[in-house]
Amino acid sequence: MNFMNKSNPIGIFDSGIGGLTVVKSVNTFLPSESIIYFGDTARVPYGSKSNSTIIEYALQDANFLAKKNVKLIIVACNTASAVALDELKKIYEIPIIGMINPGAKAAINETKNKIIGVIGTETTISNKAYSKAINNIDKDIKVVEKACPLFVPLAEEGLIDHPATKLIAEEYLKELRNENIDTLILGCTHYPILKEVIQEVIGKNVKLIDSGSAASTEVDEYLMGRGIKNYQHNIGKYEYYVSDVPKKFNEIAKRFLGKELEFLEKVELEEILNI
Amino acid sequence: MNFMNKSNPIGIFDSGIGGLTVVKSVNTFLPSESIIYFGDTARVPYGSKSNSTIIEYALQDANFLAKKNVKLIIVACNTASAVALDELKKIYEIPIIGMINPGAKAAINETKNKIIGVIGTETTISNKAYSKAINNIDKDIKVVEKACPLFVPLAEEGLIDHPATKLIAEEYLKELRNENIDTLILGCTHYPILKEVIQEVIGKNVKLIDSGSAASTEVDEYLMGRGIKNYQHNIGKYEYYVSDVPKKFNEIAKRFLGKELEFLEKVELEEILNI
Repeated sequence: MNFMNKSNPIGIFDSGIGGLTVVKSVNTFLPSESIIYFGDTARVPYGSKSNSTIIEYALQDANFLAKKNVKLIIVACNTASAVALDELKKIYEIPIIGMINPGAKAAINETKNKIIGVIGTETTISNKAYSKAINNIDKDIKVVEKACPLFVPLAEEGLIDHPATKLIAEEYLKELRNENIDTLILGCTHYPILKEVIQEVIGKNVKLIDSGSAASTEVDEYLMGRGIKNYQHNIGKYEYYVSDVPKKFNEIAKRFLGKELEFLEKVELEEILNI
Repeated sequence: MNFMNKSNPIGIFDSGIGGLTVVKSVNTFLPSESIIYFGDTARVPYGSKSNSTIIEYALQDANFLAKKNVKLIIVACNTASAVALDELKKIYEIPIIGMINPGAKAAINETKNKIIGVIGTETTISNKAYSKAINNIDKDIKVVEKACPLFVPLAEEGLIDHPATKLIAEEYLKELRNENIDTLILGCTHYPILKEVIQEVIGKNVKLIDSGSAASTEVDEYLMGRGIKNYQHNIGKYEYYVSDVPKKFNEIAKRFLGKELEFLEKVELEEILNI
């Protein structure tokens, strides 16, 4: 198959720019791999939308990457992973890795007391994606899930160490603290930006699981297992495509990626919709 | 012209549900008028997106209403009014009323010291829509504008009297307080939900202008002037259409409208896009 070539890029898509925290992880674990990123910034966010709308958008996003001849697709959005992964796998031959299973497995490896907390968007939590994935592997684990919708705009606004962010974190994490969790899955790619305040509020003894970083490890193993990992000593090429470039895009993207984007192109929504 | 019929409904569109605060105002001022509302909840929010994307979406939204034979369109979204009103007026014969001019005029009538504050989304503020509209009428007025992007998610989350909302309001409104404004335009249809905390932080002596309420007065005058105001003693019929119905939709809609929606229908995005 054409896409099963070592030198082909990895495709990564997200509802917007949160997935750049996943790009950062992949870059750390797999520096030789090239990446094509698509962020659906014209329709962001997905986390407060319905399942049917998210499935429709995720299929269009994956289709854009598939046409770029990627060897693997990472769904770098927990909401799209929670809702659309099965649909995507039905349609594409290209291997597709989401955020949920890697995050669930990493948390299971970490927990001692078998009580795991999960935070995510409204839609990820209401679909119980993580508790299903965890209890599929170990049904004795108690999973406590909590939607934290304000964490996304707070991360995008850069209110990383603002007292208001701490107050909101205290409100959201109260329940999880009372449940005595020892492991907490950051089930949204925006949340690693707020991990210091989350750690402070939930307590130092709770282990935080970054689902994007867990997914990068799984991608590494997958590529090695299939013999399509890129071992060149060159550094991979990065291309970023988005459906909208709002005013503060570069500033926010830099906060998530930790550096400037090398190549950015706006894609017309018509191209995504295949009109 | 077909649409110039007294009994035809008024069309109102918004990026999502913020425009329901405008429906509430129109209902108060013009209880006999029927309303067809379209909320683009599949692509909400507009306030953090680029001008070109907002213009594309606003034309599609207006087109949906035009096909329903409305006698007037209210752009119940400050961002779309700021960016797309001129484009809409070029295309449609139907009269179109936005949020900016009515809000600007109401503030000019109110200010004594000629220093007006404006708060709105990132895109409304960066387009300087209100300061241009105000200074077009009176160039001696000083206009101080400030983007408050977190107010939208805070209002949707219902954190109306939460201490975190007050902290964020203090941060955003600091500059406006220092500038000694005596009038403040709530330049986003979500903001009336937070008007108590905004009033508390900005000070009791500052007059708040609700742009949606100002627009309703203008609609009233327009319809009377053209002889197409509906004076029936019946109460108008209300139809609400949205492009997505996420899980918490009804709960949030009720917060904005003050009551349950009478008639709600999901419109497929294909219909909006005319595919």
